[in-house]
Amino acid sequence: MASLKEILTTVGTIFEQESFLSEPKELYEPIEYTLRLGGKRIRPSLVIAANQMFGGSDEEVHNAAIGIEVFHNFTLLHDDLMDKSPLRRGKETVYRKWNENTAILSGDTMFALAWRYYLKQPHPQLQEILNCFNETAIGVCEGQQYDMNFESCNDITINDYMEMIRLKTAVLLAGALKIGALYAQAPKEDVERLYNFGIHFGLAFQLQDDLLDAYGDVAVFGKQTGQDIRDNKKTYLPLRAMELASQTDKEELKKLFTNFDGDAEEKVSRVLAIYSHINIQEEVEKAIEKEMNMAISELNAIKIDEERKQPLRELLNTMQGRQS
Amino acid sequence: MASLKEILTTVGTIFEQESFLSEPKELYEPIEYTLRLGGKRIRPSLVIAANQMFGGSDEEVHNAAIGIEVFHNFTLLHDDLMDKSPLRRGKETVYRKWNENTAILSGDTMFALAWRYYLKQPHPQLQEILNCFNETAIGVCEGQQYDMNFESCNDITINDYMEMIRLKTAVLLAGALKIGALYAQAPKEDVERLYNFGIHFGLAFQLQDDLLDAYGDVAVFGKQTGQDIRDNKKTYLPLRAMELASQTDKEELKKLFTNFDGDAEEKVSRVLAIYSHINIQEEVEKAIEKEMNMAISELNAIKIDEERKQPLRELLNTMQGRQS
Repeated sequence: MASLKEILTTVGTIFEQESFLSEPKELYEPIEYTLRLGGKRIRPSLVIAANQMFGGSDEEVHNAAIGIEVFHNFTLLHDDLMDKSPLRRGKETVYRKWNENTAILSGDTMFALAWRYYLKQPHPQLQEILNCFNETAIGVCEGQQYDMNFESCNDITINDYMEMIRLKTAVLLAGALKIGALYAQAPKEDVERLYNFGIHFGLAFQLQDDLLDAYGDVAVFGKQTGQDIRDNKKTYLPLRAMELASQTDKEELKKLFTNFDGDAEEKVSRVLAIYSHINIQEEVEKAIEKEMNMAISELNAIKIDEERKQPLRELLNTMQGRQS
Repeated sequence: MASLKEILTTVGTIFEQESFLSEPKELYEPIEYTLRLGGKRIRPSLVIAANQMFGGSDEEVHNAAIGIEVFHNFTLLHDDLMDKSPLRRGKETVYRKWNENTAILSGDTMFALAWRYYLKQPHPQLQEILNCFNETAIGVCEGQQYDMNFESCNDITINDYMEMIRLKTAVLLAGALKIGALYAQAPKEDVERLYNFGIHFGLAFQLQDDLLDAYGDVAVFGKQTGQDIRDNKKTYLPLRAMELASQTDKEELKKLFTNFDGDAEEKVSRVLAIYSHINIQEEVEKAIEKEMNMAISELNAIKIDEERKQPLRELLNTMQGRQS
């Protein structure tokens, strides 16, 4: 049994050894650049962790692990273009370093390259694995669309928001776990529990991401803080704030998120001031804890040796004190 | 044995009966719009024609036929955005009717939807079929990148150009045929010949498309003529013209395609004037005929009853007097 740390090291090595360069270089250099930016590599690690949990042979899922990370980075590349984000992991985004067309086409190619990894080797349940991968991809696209819709919509509920982040973020983490378990031919009900674990972990992960956007350390977080506020993103923070704020703060918040055309930095600091009045940080932490507890219940219910669950327990522990 | 016309009718019915609408509607309405624009539906017809040629059961490839058309329309949707084309089949393109982000994300989703059709049913050679589909997709992306590279490159040869259109256009037509034949479990060498037939037919098809861009009837062709000239696209026409034109014409052509900042319509008519000096139309027709003859040779070499080749012979005949 490898620990989560050992799995992360394995994944790091896999990516160091993999080259994404090919011809035409104008197409593949942005892909290589994107996949060399690093990142936490959580999704490929989840594929391997889930596979090992059910006695898989590790190497059999290396391609699936690479494939899911390539897919994830494709979605980031297109999201950065759609959101016009200047930075990703502290470096220029592809559409800024090259141009918009390069970002579109290199992204499209990454999606196909992800499939190439999934199609490298046979497996008795290949069709089910590929279906899981593809339905995950469709979920991520739908989640991104809801996210964009929310920007111009002023009656989003916390439920709407949780459904959006389930699609945009959680299904991919859950899908990574399911794929790893399917490769190991895990029992159906355990695959389901592991998927649900991934959903709740994913929701907790995204809520923490929202929190870091407002309160993270820019050097560690790797992107500008307050970007969600600048973009009028109705994340858990403003949605919960609208429920808890005083009448005056509520009206100001509404104005700041809809028709404020002053300085963006002033907007960020005014929103943060309201957040601090109602101690929003603690509110988000409570929501994160709720999802974490549900994830733990699903993990507890899986009928395998406790020792085999260790990497996923470690994963849950990394959420405490997460900075990036 | 269904004739090509009957196959086209079948494909038309398949698309009439298929809905692409789902939630969120902001994501799926542009997809439904794109797939309702019509078009010739050549690629899905090729899937069915090839399948039937080798005794396939027709229904077994309906999903693959839909999938390839969804994929093709995804590439058109993103190409129109990258090329900033205002019209597609005489109607507004998605990025104009909605916006750029919608075009990006609806396109991404179409790629995943295409996969969903391919994953609907099992097949003993599913992995090979999916590999063919995916390598085709990668080829199309590479072809589009070469096409974009050529815009800012002034030493493109006709060979470079033929390789670009092989990737951008021909591999998808060839891939459609190969997929249909694989579903019918055709002999390996016939699958290869059919693929080569598709490549040569595809090259002829694209050369004719280039010709129609300059000389087509806008009402029938469904898009503005002269767009390639406006975009400085080094298609077969200017590349061959540069080989055949007088020194004066050659210099003017070079200037028009590199640093002409006058009125676009004036540019189009000046380029067309040079084309007519050297009878470029006849030159392109010769190149088309060469590819058509190579396609015919491949088709002749396939070891099945002549009757079974009829739909593909009809396909070749449609190239005569093609207007759109």
